[in-house]
Amino acid sequence: MAENQKNKLSTEPYKGVRDFYPEDMFVQNFITNTMREAAESFGYVEYNASVLEPSEIYEAKSGEEIVNEQTYTFIDRGDRSVTLRPEMTPTVARMVAGRRKELAFPVRWYSIPNLFRYERPQRGRLREHWQLNCDLFGVTDPAGDAEVIALAAHVLTHFGADNSMFEIRVNHRNLLDTLFRDVLELSETATYQLSKLIDRKDKMASEAFAEEAQGIIGEKSESLVRLLSASDLGGFLAISEELKQSTGAAELKSVLEHLKANGITNVSFSPTLVRGFDYYTGTVFEIFDTSPENNRSITGGGRYDGLVDLFGVEPVPAVGFGMGDVTVRDFLSGHNLTPAYTSPVDVYLVSISPEMLPHSEGLARYLREKGLSVAVDLSGRKVGDQIKTADKQGAPFVIVVGDEEVASGTFKLKHLGTGEEKAVSRDQIADTVFSFIG
Amino acid sequence: MAENQKNKLSTEPYKGVRDFYPEDMFVQNFITNTMREAAESFGYVEYNASVLEPSEIYEAKSGEEIVNEQTYTFIDRGDRSVTLRPEMTPTVARMVAGRRKELAFPVRWYSIPNLFRYERPQRGRLREHWQLNCDLFGVTDPAGDAEVIALAAHVLTHFGADNSMFEIRVNHRNLLDTLFRDVLELSETATYQLSKLIDRKDKMASEAFAEEAQGIIGEKSESLVRLLSASDLGGFLAISEELKQSTGAAELKSVLEHLKANGITNVSFSPTLVRGFDYYTGTVFEIFDTSPENNRSITGGGRYDGLVDLFGVEPVPAVGFGMGDVTVRDFLSGHNLTPAYTSPVDVYLVSISPEMLPHSEGLARYLREKGLSVAVDLSGRKVGDQIKTADKQGAPFVIVVGDEEVASGTFKLKHLGTGEEKAVSRDQIADTVFSFIG
Repeated sequence: MAENQKNKLSTEPYKGVRDFYPEDMFVQNFITNTMREAAESFGYVEYNASVLEPSEIYEAKSGEEIVNEQTYTFIDRGDRSVTLRPEMTPTVARMVAGRRKELAFPVRWYSIPNLFRYERPQRGRLREHWQLNCDLFGVTDPAGDAEVIALAAHVLTHFGADNSMFEIRVNHRNLLDTLFRDVLELSETATYQLSKLIDRKDKMASEAFAEEAQGIIGEKSESLVRLLSASDLGGFLAISEELKQSTGAAELKSVLEHLKANGITNVSFSPTLVRGFDYYTGTVFEIFDTSPENNRSITGGGRYDGLVDLFGVEPVPAVGFGMGDVTVRDFLSGHNLTPAYTSPVDVYLVSISPEMLPHSEGLARYLREKGLSVAVDLSGRKVGDQIKTADKQGAPFVIVVGDEEVASGTFKLKHLGTGEEKAVSRDQIADTVFSFIG
Repeated sequence: MAENQKNKLSTEPYKGVRDFYPEDMFVQNFITNTMREAAESFGYVEYNASVLEPSEIYEAKSGEEIVNEQTYTFIDRGDRSVTLRPEMTPTVARMVAGRRKELAFPVRWYSIPNLFRYERPQRGRLREHWQLNCDLFGVTDPAGDAEVIALAAHVLTHFGADNSMFEIRVNHRNLLDTLFRDVLELSETATYQLSKLIDRKDKMASEAFAEEAQGIIGEKSESLVRLLSASDLGGFLAISEELKQSTGAAELKSVLEHLKANGITNVSFSPTLVRGFDYYTGTVFEIFDTSPENNRSITGGGRYDGLVDLFGVEPVPAVGFGMGDVTVRDFLSGHNLTPAYTSPVDVYLVSISPEMLPHSEGLARYLREKGLSVAVDLSGRKVGDQIKTADKQGAPFVIVVGDEEVASGTFKLKHLGTGEEKAVSRDQIADTVFSFIG
């Protein structure tokens, strides 16, 4: 390598992505392990795929424009268009379609993939995040929708949350469709404009919403505004026979009943809940943080019965949700649920001189066989400096290895947190540590 | 979405990457969990970073040409050149450099990232694989080199391997340097040509190697060929005072002594071991599968003391290795060490009718609180079909939920493997299952 190439390289990661130093990785592992346990307790099994996907699987449902503008898409040297996956649902639909005939349905799958979005840097949003995806395939019964919602809630309680910390909101695509088509009898254009408006409702002042709604549908807007503020399904349905008789009403009622059987009560009806992706076909839901400082959606999902058959197989009903690591981190820290860092190291071995290293190595090997995690310092520095490193790295126990200890076979096991010291024989070290760790 | 876009999409993943269906993911998790446990038992802590890295960190050490030809590199819309990481070492060097002042050395870090190479499709090699990376920073003592080699071997034994299944080969960069410069007194051109030739030696017939060597260094080639076949460090060093006195000789001897203290004996000296990356500065090693059908390198690494300071900080000595999931899979299957798939599901609940579903849901909730993984069928199919699904999915236990069971509170817990059936009360189910699983 030429000397002039030795310019200083930046230590920053690529714009919009994160480095996970051990303390960050500890929290990340807490999040993903908790998600994993929660999903598996509901019988979901893990799958995965590459971050690289053929671009066409996103174009089919999202339109080419969105794919090119908001994703990392590029042409490889074999002239293939390839995309860093922006979401997992098209991938899981592709994989289920690929084994449509072999799989034993109902299929319960989960994954915790990293997803990529091409965000403009100035917005300060992340370009990569991790997301738990749970999907249930092969169930048309609304009990399936309820299970998926119950699982999303269970993930949060498995993090240590209680029901007061989050609120579930549900809706059904068919209810708004029926309202627009059969009750308000809107044109296609008005339906489209109104849907977009409702999707923005929560980010608008109520006066502005009412005004824009009136611009689209005139005098009908008054009853609409009143209707959309309903949080009670019965009240919403009461306004028309069409709504009462709709499939959306029947399915959503059933979802609510099954939620009760699943022990879920902190749920409310939200007629304005739309969700961005247009592949949803039935129930949609979101779970909101109830904390006033962070009243945001933590997770959401719904039923998407029309996605698997895009891959040329018989349709497979599907319902699922996604829960991102960044929103979960905010939720956990807002409710003091983030655990403090603990090191995987149990015992840190300090050697009084480099000549002692082979003895430390032998002791480390012996203790590892007993199931302990053991680090040997190896730096050749002063004993005090080695102990400082152990402390800074969060190792709970230190043993100083010197001639005396090696000769006698008795070692002083020191707990760094309390300063307590105990002389133990080689074969007692592991048990003493285990009894302390619990 | 326009109707004509509904062409059939392919269910195949992107060229050269893998889908991980649950059975594949099970093996993948076995591999990564075993790696994790082994690394942590040596006191290594986990870190991670994004797959997206600024391209410049690879160009510095590998040359721009290699980066562009063998990696996924593209220009983002902010005109940044970004690369899907082809290896983890530049990333970990960047991260250590970024916290050079705050970190308490020696630092022991591991990660299991996915890595990308742009392989020509016809070669049939994978474009994405996962790789355990373990690195020790801040230790100059050859005991550090030995620890890293011992850890690599420990990962293999933690998979269930014994010492007869693999063989460690070590070398030191300084030995070949000394041989070329001081013993053979070669020109720079001859040194370069000879290094490249030696790197290919194992893939050549010995006659072809001897002939090419003669073409480069003439009559000196005879003694060289003899020398390079040495597997005994003492014999290799005996040929010249320069080699005996070299730093490579001293360090490698020390590495071998420390390996002994670490309990490692299946190690031999291999003067032709070079390894591709040019950032290695001292000890290099590889571990080979001893199986005649798969006599390939499973893992390798070495000392790279000059990488961290490329990021403009004080130098940090470093030694580490990488172990890929694909070579590990081959090693495991060659030695019958791959575990059979087991489902995470403990109990599969079958309902005799959709009306029973709320009872099944309530029972599932109760059993999950006791720590079981429970799946509820929800399909509404015949009892026999639901049981078949449980069996096909690998659930060990089935409970059929009907009016009678709900009324009596007694359930028949059926073990699908043995066909055994036991009537137990609701509160005995969990204990009965646990006592069976062990």
